[in-house]
Amino acid sequence: MRPSSSTSEGLFGRLFADPAVDASVSDVALVEACLEVEAALVLAAADVGLVPGSVAADIAEAARSLEVDVDELGRDAVSTGNPVPPLVTRLGAAVPEAARPWVHLGATSQDIFDTSLVLTGRRAGRLIADRTDAAGDRAADLAAAHRDTVMIARSLGQHAMPTTFGLRAAGWLAPLRSSAGSLRAATDRLPVQLGGAVGTLAAYGDRGFEVRRALAERLGLPGGERPLAWHTDRSPWLEVASALGLVSAAVGKVALDVRLLTATEVAEIRTGAGGSGGSSAMPHKRNPVDAILATAGVVRVPGLVATLFAASVHGHERADGDWHAEWLPLRELISVVGGVAARGAELLDGLAVDPDRMRQNLDLSGGAVMAESVASRLAGPLGRSEAHQLVADLARRAAEAGRSLRDELLAEPAVTDHLDAAAVDAALDPRDRLGIAGPAVDEALRRYGRRTEATT
Amino acid sequence: MRPSSSTSEGLFGRLFADPAVDASVSDVALVEACLEVEAALVLAAADVGLVPGSVAADIAEAARSLEVDVDELGRDAVSTGNPVPPLVTRLGAAVPEAARPWVHLGATSQDIFDTSLVLTGRRAGRLIADRTDAAGDRAADLAAAHRDTVMIARSLGQHAMPTTFGLRAAGWLAPLRSSAGSLRAATDRLPVQLGGAVGTLAAYGDRGFEVRRALAERLGLPGGERPLAWHTDRSPWLEVASALGLVSAAVGKVALDVRLLTATEVAEIRTGAGGSGGSSAMPHKRNPVDAILATAGVVRVPGLVATLFAASVHGHERADGDWHAEWLPLRELISVVGGVAARGAELLDGLAVDPDRMRQNLDLSGGAVMAESVASRLAGPLGRSEAHQLVADLARRAAEAGRSLRDELLAEPAVTDHLDAAAVDAALDPRDRLGIAGPAVDEALRRYGRRTEATT
Amino acid sequence: MRPSSSTSEGLFGRLFADPAVDASVSDVALVEACLEVEAALVLAAADVGLVPGSVAADIAEAARSLEVDVDELGRDAVSTGNPVPPLVTRLGAAVPEAARPWVHLGATSQDIFDTSLVLTGRRAGRLIADRTDAAGDRAADLAAAHRDTVMIARSLGQHAMPTTFGLRAAGWLAPLRSSAGSLRAATDRLPVQLGGAVGTLAAYGDRGFEVRRALAERLGLPGGERPLAWHTDRSPWLEVASALGLVSAAVGKVALDVRLLTATEVAEIRTGAGGSGGSSAMPHKRNPVDAILATAGVVRVPGLVATLFAASVHGHERADGDWHAEWLPLRELISVVGGVAARGAELLDGLAVDPDRMRQNLDLSGGAVMAESVASRLAGPLGRSEAHQLVADLARRAAEAGRSLRDELLAEPAVTDHLDAAAVDAALDPRDRLGIAGPAVDEALRRYGRRTEATT
Amino acid sequence: MRPSSSTSEGLFGRLFADPAVDASVSDVALVEACLEVEAALVLAAADVGLVPGSVAADIAEAARSLEVDVDELGRDAVSTGNPVPPLVTRLGAAVPEAARPWVHLGATSQDIFDTSLVLTGRRAGRLIADRTDAAGDRAADLAAAHRDTVMIARSLGQHAMPTTFGLRAAGWLAPLRSSAGSLRAATDRLPVQLGGAVGTLAAYGDRGFEVRRALAERLGLPGGERPLAWHTDRSPWLEVASALGLVSAAVGKVALDVRLLTATEVAEIRTGAGGSGGSSAMPHKRNPVDAILATAGVVRVPGLVATLFAASVHGHERADGDWHAEWLPLRELISVVGGVAARGAELLDGLAVDPDRMRQNLDLSGGAVMAESVASRLAGPLGRSEAHQLVADLARRAAEAGRSLRDELLAEPAVTDHLDAAAVDAALDPRDRLGIAGPAVDEALRRYGRRTEATT
Repeated sequence: MRPSSSTSEGLFGRLFADPAVDASVSDVALVEACLEVEAALVLAAADVGLVPGSVAADIAEAARSLEVDVDELGRDAVSTGNPVPPLVTRLGAAVPEAARPWVHLGATSQDIFDTSLVLTGRRAGRLIADRTDAAGDRAADLAAAHRDTVMIARSLGQHAMPTTFGLRAAGWLAPLRSSAGSLRAATDRLPVQLGGAVGTLAAYGDRGFEVRRALAERLGLPGGERPLAWHTDRSPWLEVASALGLVSAAVGKVALDVRLLTATEVAEIRTGAGGSGGSSAMPHKRNPVDAILATAGVVRVPGLVATLFAASVHGHERADGDWHAEWLPLRELISVVGGVAARGAELLDGLAVDPDRMRQNLDLSGGAVMAESVASRLAGPLGRSEAHQLVADLARRAAEAGRSLRDELLAEPAVTDHLDAAAVDAALDPRDRLGIAGPAVDEALRRYGRRTEATT
Repeated sequence: MRPSSSTSEGLFGRLFADPAVDASVSDVALVEACLEVEAALVLAAADVGLVPGSVAADIAEAARSLEVDVDELGRDAVSTGNPVPPLVTRLGAAVPEAARPWVHLGATSQDIFDTSLVLTGRRAGRLIADRTDAAGDRAADLAAAHRDTVMIARSLGQHAMPTTFGLRAAGWLAPLRSSAGSLRAATDRLPVQLGGAVGTLAAYGDRGFEVRRALAERLGLPGGERPLAWHTDRSPWLEVASALGLVSAAVGKVALDVRLLTATEVAEIRTGAGGSGGSSAMPHKRNPVDAILATAGVVRVPGLVATLFAASVHGHERADGDWHAEWLPLRELISVVGGVAARGAELLDGLAVDPDRMRQNLDLSGGAVMAESVASRLAGPLGRSEAHQLVADLARRAAEAGRSLRDELLAEPAVTDHLDAAAVDAALDPRDRLGIAGPAVDEALRRYGRRTEATT
Repeated sequence: MRPSSSTSEGLFGRLFADPAVDASVSDVALVEACLEVEAALVLAAADVGLVPGSVAADIAEAARSLEVDVDELGRDAVSTGNPVPPLVTRLGAAVPEAARPWVHLGATSQDIFDTSLVLTGRRAGRLIADRTDAAGDRAADLAAAHRDTVMIARSLGQHAMPTTFGLRAAGWLAPLRSSAGSLRAATDRLPVQLGGAVGTLAAYGDRGFEVRRALAERLGLPGGERPLAWHTDRSPWLEVASALGLVSAAVGKVALDVRLLTATEVAEIRTGAGGSGGSSAMPHKRNPVDAILATAGVVRVPGLVATLFAASVHGHERADGDWHAEWLPLRELISVVGGVAARGAELLDGLAVDPDRMRQNLDLSGGAVMAESVASRLAGPLGRSEAHQLVADLARRAAEAGRSLRDELLAEPAVTDHLDAAAVDAALDPRDRLGIAGPAVDEALRRYGRRTEATT
Repeated sequence: MRPSSSTSEGLFGRLFADPAVDASVSDVALVEACLEVEAALVLAAADVGLVPGSVAADIAEAARSLEVDVDELGRDAVSTGNPVPPLVTRLGAAVPEAARPWVHLGATSQDIFDTSLVLTGRRAGRLIADRTDAAGDRAADLAAAHRDTVMIARSLGQHAMPTTFGLRAAGWLAPLRSSAGSLRAATDRLPVQLGGAVGTLAAYGDRGFEVRRALAERLGLPGGERPLAWHTDRSPWLEVASALGLVSAAVGKVALDVRLLTATEVAEIRTGAGGSGGSSAMPHKRNPVDAILATAGVVRVPGLVATLFAASVHGHERADGDWHAEWLPLRELISVVGGVAARGAELLDGLAVDPDRMRQNLDLSGGAVMAESVASRLAGPLGRSEAHQLVADLARRAAEAGRSLRDELLAEPAVTDHLDAAAVDAALDPRDRLGIAGPAVDEALRRYGRRTEATT
């Protein structure tokens, strides 16, 4: 087959996509999948005795070896509004004349095209899920390696209290893993489509169910036993779209954190050589390129998900526009999330953590982030609210004076009456205020940790 | 509690919403749920021995009986950016002074507010699923009643081939049922939220897991055994949003078909008195109001789903804006889909089918829609493609001459050599070209049919 | 230049796009525009004396003749996250060594890439506006030709009162014309981008304003006098996106009406040969393919507009992801609306109107749509509300009995006491209830009518 | 009029909205505007002689004084699908019987409701534009005050080169001002709607144009001279929606920068008391609450804009669902952007700038950000590319060794051969690399500076 344009990477294929994913849903892949469906259809019809076996074999063989000029096919698709009729014409011309009447038997264009989107979408979904799992594996490695690496947690953009980088990485891991699972489940559930012109499979007489089952079996797709075609019920795609959105959100979280943590003033992590773009004008810069490119994809996902929902209400037996509206946004969404997942995996692959800088940043606020810890130790003697108020006052005073909270505490009798210097130091030790961070990482790793079977 | 504004229906509550659903996520319902969570939290902390039992009982009682002016609470929420801190202040003021330090123990605002959204969202989700199932029940009734009611199927806006109204209604039923199931599953999976300020539950020392489990148990929520808080992993909401989108698409399909089939020229169905608005200016009009109002909601859903996906990437340990961005779109989406499901149920409730008009419309094209059927009977003697071509020519000639296809067929020797008038009539009988329509309805009813347990 | 993949049409380029529009924003067009900007930049710097004239001429000449392998450039773009740095490297290698330091002088990647998007976007915008105006011309022709062709107007899907097809077509014309104007204005306002690394144009010392002005002048772009770069102010693109959305809505209206009016039961218009796809399975069908394909594009527009708004908030001096997020949605939106406009023009080009069928449909409801007209003539003698009620009752009775309203009216003494048969007939004549339809068409044609200068 | 629910602020009205804006588009405001339109309509009809003057005066007076229970009206709206018919019924009951036939004369519900949305939307738009201009005034003050306050500019999240805070603030100012202008223009262009049942104004005979003109004049609205109703041409709303999106993007930029610049490690600005929320659990925190709440609104805007575009394709003479779909998203968008603008104005009002910290952050990278400046001074003697390479090497070496770039430069003979210490210091002085920053601020203030006439 003459390679179509869309299999080439062009200016943006490497920036925003994953070449393997794009190839799996390219023009060529779609046309090949259509031919795969046409071949399986006639063989299925032969399976149930509606087509002579030798005729089916001839057609299947012709479908397998058909050479199609995709650009030309695209031009011929205009008069009917979809590429299946001109493809059927080509296939018909390639089979022995006697076999011709059995080509595309009983099917409508949407049967073929939907099923080809299912086949290619399933392949793409698996690739993306694998990339996402690869990112998850690396997040698991980071969580394990940094189970006890203390850093400042930030909420609403501000220093909050201590946590560990391990817990942060475990928080990346869980949605990476679960979204990969959702995507695999959604694409593996994509059913075969076969309804004939209006969903009745009328051309097969009363044998329609059998043909549908045989087709599903031959293609290895679920849905062969469904009573109804899904010409107007687009929930299978909506579930895939939602799962792709989950993957995007999971990787987007990693990318956002990386952008935040690599900011010059924060600098708690560094991205790898591959993902750290220099600037021709500014030699000192190391931009977190993978995170930026992943982000650029993540931003595009909600609009594409919305478009698929917007196109999901199909009138009568088959839609007059909304079906056609699905094809490119679906492919675009797959391509974008493919790129997002690939960038996410690469990004995590090259991530270097700087525990010293983390500790340094944690100390920036002179112990103020430990105020709650101190207050809780004074709650017994002073009462909770007075203790809270006292420490808050001291923290504010320390901040205004540019002194450390430790110094303020040790200069305050209401504190030193109850806590000696060692007790104050213990209260100010962030390692003492990590709560369940360690065990939570352990349990997250047990649940979501490295998949030994993960591919890529 | 002083009823907040948002529990009143206003100008649009009946048009575009479902009062019961709206009430379940109203301002008042949210504040009550926050107090329910605060009560459960302190009781859970008592369960694991972190709070004296009597103190917990006092706080829980105070939470249950607290009177809150919601407008005032809303004003006080501005300085902290969310309503939980001023609510905690009110609750603190309502408990004995000795109990005050244990109020809101170890929780962050997001713990309380997310869990209150979970509680209210779950109630709303169940109501919407029930409405959707009620619509499904009615679709099942229609499918059963019209299993053999022949009508013309339409694809791309044009007459295609015969089908039955039963199959159309079964095609409504399946996604109504499956989307209701998806919504129940997604809302029932919504987990308890408890992470403390930064996800470490540090205030509970090493007892954080126990408190979380006890809280989940007390609230009857899943997620108590999760290792991680989901402060920044918003997939639970995304799954709810997607399921709401599926419900909307399922009802939207019914509404679109009703708008199409009630069009004056088509008139194959009529909507009930409740859903058929007259026009003051035009006494002859019967507008399919329920279908129109459902449609108006359906149009709004993709943008709201997109917004929730757009708000789903949360930085650091807790987000600086995207969390806040979720609340109203989530509630809006629930309200809109609540309205859509309610309109859908009402719409289907009043639907009247006109089999005579269906038959009349089917005959409009003078048998041309049966052309394929005739061609298939001539395929043996003439060869498939020649038979196809012959009938196509006759159909075109009939259309141009304003004659019926039957007359053209009986005037053509190439036809009458092989088919007599009875055979032509049989070929033109739409009941003979319904394929699997009947059994498909039967099987759809077996799978998705009337839920005897459905509430509403 | 080796043609990139994206200039080929592939499977969908003809279905959903306009090859000329796509070519104007292709990978190759973008790279060529980048080189055009680099050339203009160095010439502008020479204009103000910052670069020796002969050096500038050498660089400009090299930019004009540079051969770039777009796929390779795309691969090299990954390390920096955008294609400008590797393009600058190639350009640098192509100029005499002495000229090399002046290549890309003082610019940042975003300056070059934004300006190249401006240049290509402006070309694309003009093409799309021309297509839209061509559609408008045809709508004007239809409005003029059918100024007095009576048809039934429909509101909320139901027959309402008489109108003319001319008024309908004038209603197409106005937004086609105004959206084309908005698009031209928005793309013609797109300003030159030049800010240097951080918007200060520091590399030009105090000559930055002069360079910017000279660059704008050389490229024929506005914005040379703006005090600020627009690195983070994306309103120019948002205005283009909105204008593209207006075009889409304008064409979408035509496409929707065509889908509605070509429905088998309505059949008041027919689409041309080019836009009326047959169906291989159903020889009698004539699908309004152009309207369907236009619709498929229209559905995709809101999500793309939303994406550009979502990507429009850029942090600090230049964004870390949202800038990159713009490129492909912007190009996609241009491509989609290009396709929409092209399909709209083709669709209108082949539209045939069937005045007889229009009249036939208008008569379907047996005069009931004229009820208001009759009532108004009885308002004098009977009082407005009683007259209204009487006619409403008669209309209902007629509908139920399957008789015409005329017969009911003439059998009712309360009517015949005041109106004789001729008066009843006059009241029932739709031509008498067209209000301002005719003059409104005349005035619309004066304002928005055929553009003699329209290209395409 | 009994105040409807929607005029109360509830739990979220102060967080995410602007009470004045919300009041201007409340249920009550809409109903009052409907009555205002009904009054103006009958007076306009009297102006042209179609209604007796005293009858018109009676109806207008009744409309002005009508008491409406909005909840009840909302319930009664269900049967017709919009609130105008039951409102007309109420108005009819309130006028003398003889006047009743002239109530709502010749109008359709959409005429009244669209025009009431126009009236309320225009008021809301002006309020929002005023808030936005107030924010702009404060940005202008900041730009003026900090014209020469040096700070590090950041691109892609990383330190880039020096700029001034004045230039940053000028970059806020420009889109605040231009978006306020766009919003005013779009809302002031909103035209009167009057078309009658199907756009022909048939009930006025041939006087339709005159009535429309008179109505526009009475309401002070443009569009009186338009030949066509805009029942199905929704571009006026799309232009308002786009302008609201521009306002949101302009404020969103400020909010994002504030979130970035208040991050604990950056801390170059502080938000005011009103906008700096403490945390009950963490006394040291000062959250940029206004920026967070503004952000929460900004995130919601693209989905709402998309919804209005999605609802903008209206079939036939009046739509069967898409018109209804506009109302709430339009009001929601107004409310959200009202809140965004209000938060933006408050946020800027309390903003404190810390020039010392800015200078401190600028020095963080030890002069590396000035590398380009040094390189440019060595370009003469060493050649541009060699100078660039040399300085890049020294910067890298300095970063790795934890030394300042100055020290590295002064230790390198290839540098000191050409630059002495004073020259190196000059090259490293950021004030020397600000390019056009100062004059650009001056010019921006001239163009967009403080509006003495701004209200609020």
